[in-house]
Amino acid sequence: MKYSKYFGQTKRDQKQYESKNQTLLQKAGYIDQLSAGVYTFLPLGLRVINNINTVIREEMNAIGGQEILMPALVQKELWEKTKRWDLDVPFKTALYDGKEFALGWSHEEVVTPLAKQFISSYRDLPFAPYQIQTKFRNEARAKSGIMRGREFLMKDMYSFHIDQVDLDRFYLEATEAYRRVFTRVGLGNVIYLTFASGGVFSKFSHEFQVISDVGEDTVYVSEEKKVAINKEVYTDEVLSELGVKKESLIEKRSIEVGNIFKLGTRFSQAFDVTYADAEGKKHNPVMGCYGIGPSRVMGTMVEVLADDKGLVWPKEVAPYQVHLVNIQAEEQAQRVYDLLQKAGVEVLWDDRDLRAGEKFTDADLIGLPLRVVVSEKTGDRVEVKARAGGESPIVGMEEMVKMVKKGEE
Amino acid sequence: MKYSKYFGQTKRDQKQYESKNQTLLQKAGYIDQLSAGVYTFLPLGLRVINNINTVIREEMNAIGGQEILMPALVQKELWEKTKRWDLDVPFKTALYDGKEFALGWSHEEVVTPLAKQFISSYRDLPFAPYQIQTKFRNEARAKSGIMRGREFLMKDMYSFHIDQVDLDRFYLEATEAYRRVFTRVGLGNVIYLTFASGGVFSKFSHEFQVISDVGEDTVYVSEEKKVAINKEVYTDEVLSELGVKKESLIEKRSIEVGNIFKLGTRFSQAFDVTYADAEGKKHNPVMGCYGIGPSRVMGTMVEVLADDKGLVWPKEVAPYQVHLVNIQAEEQAQRVYDLLQKAGVEVLWDDRDLRAGEKFTDADLIGLPLRVVVSEKTGDRVEVKARAGGESPIVGMEEMVKMVKKGEE
Repeated sequence: MKYSKYFGQTKRDQKQYESKNQTLLQKAGYIDQLSAGVYTFLPLGLRVINNINTVIREEMNAIGGQEILMPALVQKELWEKTKRWDLDVPFKTALYDGKEFALGWSHEEVVTPLAKQFISSYRDLPFAPYQIQTKFRNEARAKSGIMRGREFLMKDMYSFHIDQVDLDRFYLEATEAYRRVFTRVGLGNVIYLTFASGGVFSKFSHEFQVISDVGEDTVYVSEEKKVAINKEVYTDEVLSELGVKKESLIEKRSIEVGNIFKLGTRFSQAFDVTYADAEGKKHNPVMGCYGIGPSRVMGTMVEVLADDKGLVWPKEVAPYQVHLVNIQAEEQAQRVYDLLQKAGVEVLWDDRDLRAGEKFTDADLIGLPLRVVVSEKTGDRVEVKARAGGESPIVGMEEMVKMVKKGEE
Repeated sequence: MKYSKYFGQTKRDQKQYESKNQTLLQKAGYIDQLSAGVYTFLPLGLRVINNINTVIREEMNAIGGQEILMPALVQKELWEKTKRWDLDVPFKTALYDGKEFALGWSHEEVVTPLAKQFISSYRDLPFAPYQIQTKFRNEARAKSGIMRGREFLMKDMYSFHIDQVDLDRFYLEATEAYRRVFTRVGLGNVIYLTFASGGVFSKFSHEFQVISDVGEDTVYVSEEKKVAINKEVYTDEVLSELGVKKESLIEKRSIEVGNIFKLGTRFSQAFDVTYADAEGKKHNPVMGCYGIGPSRVMGTMVEVLADDKGLVWPKEVAPYQVHLVNIQAEEQAQRVYDLLQKAGVEVLWDDRDLRAGEKFTDADLIGLPLRVVVSEKTGDRVEVKARAGGESPIVGMEEMVKMVKKGEE
């Protein structure tokens, strides 16, 4: 894609927001704020989101998740069954005839009656539908950029099981799938499985927390065990139960990017969902739920990985793999562009008629993994430089394609 | 994918709805109604939607469209600028502090101020951002299944141009792109480019109407010219302008599946968007908008293509290409399944322990393009049958894979 024609380019005079992710992503042309907590994703930003979604889909499908798409308009009667209509969270709306809805901020009230239609016998279980869908939360404060939106993308999966044992089995598989997601998107080194409050049906829920000073949560981190404990359950009793010594823990600020939760039979009871066991006896299925916010993951990556020059995307989520920059030498650049496209590499070509310095500044800001520079100076060769740093060798075409393909692995 | 584990299977006792698409899609396990006009897409249904979206994306990208994603929460101030806050259409909601929003039912109020940020000179034009996004409409009546939702998917593209001439050029390209979309999804034979009311800035807008008795529109069709005229502009003056004779037209009911519209400068004026021409003189960009509802297209396909046994999907949108049915002969079926998967074919394998008749009935209902039957009778060979009808030869494995791959072309 040629950058001269790109919709959503870098801005010279970007306003500074409270949050680094918002400032950088707007400056670099990835997002645009419509109102506090409400954003448009521009082509570059949408490509990052789609890449994150692909990773999530692959890992959810790998543990048997099945993708569906539930609606945002959820009628009042359903929320009343679970006593969640009167919470602070929902945006509410109504039909002209008066029928009321809350915009879904979580989908237990939709997925549980849906699942009910397909459950009669123990042989119908387990299953785990999930969706990647737009959620709405009536947040009082929305100043953390795309880390906390009033409207935001969420992957929410719900699992249904004959008993606690089967839920526990799947819950562990989901935990591992979540680890793989965060590792693949480049947060593997900064993610901590975190013990948090579990509610009625389970002692703990589990969060995936990324250590960052801009986080809204406080956790106690055990570097040795690579786990953390959320402040909300940080008691002597819990420490002893988890076998963690107080002295080994360090208090940190962190960002919650994922959350998994054992729901027990709270929702299957509320909607009177039952299955018959082998003896014909009826039981409520045991449920779990599993959330990741793709837009929050994207914002977190900016907070954690960006440097003072701009964004730095790991290859698996980068909107393009190569930022091609030409300093004059347009014909040569066209050849390199065609060569890379032909090799199946996604290239953003800054073909604008600007000075080299401006192009380099923008390339650093946009943060694609590899920069390839073509100029009169490099002649038949090109300069290749990783955004993350290191050498910038001048190499031949074949070598360049090899380096790019290697970077993609 | 094995059907025994599939989330959202066929129903024996499906309620009959007013609309055929709703009844059939729910019976076959593609969708589920949450409330009137509000639907969940189950795995089969979501795969159809995704396939339709892929076709739309490819054709929009081919004419220079650039995909973005705008939010649903659109603040009151923006609607007031275009005097569209008080329309009947929107669902409205508010923050706890009182700030009001309408849920986007069209996005001129978002895309125009967005585009403004990236327009200063004539050199910045033209461009055409589009999105595939969930829209909300406060419909009084919502009984046409997924053809008319209160919440539904929409592809909406908006184009910005220096003048009417450039808009006209792009508008024609968009018309051709729309034709390609409808042809690829299998509606090419029943689609009519239809002259409809154009509003202030243009005499006509253009609709893409599919002839069907369940349609809500009335059009006058010229079979010879393969065009139609919407009742709303069916006057002697218009007929003479279009050079169409009244006697050659036939009145028909039809479903509007796409709509393209010249907006002129209505929105660029409302949001004070200007560009400077080569002499530095300021002008408002001229705009066009281009909509297709993927969920409405899906519903229309059911109305037009289904038969009395169930759904019939063209190959480009079918959720899977092959419905593998085994009558006992499980090991043989596993071999066929593995073979097809290895060949890159998407297979739904009905591996349930049911009688042949039940499996065949479900296969017809689900409507995948090709049915492959494995039984003791067929031995090392398989029976291949197209859902659309015709022969059902018994062939060897190699021949079967060839037939399937040919069907996919």
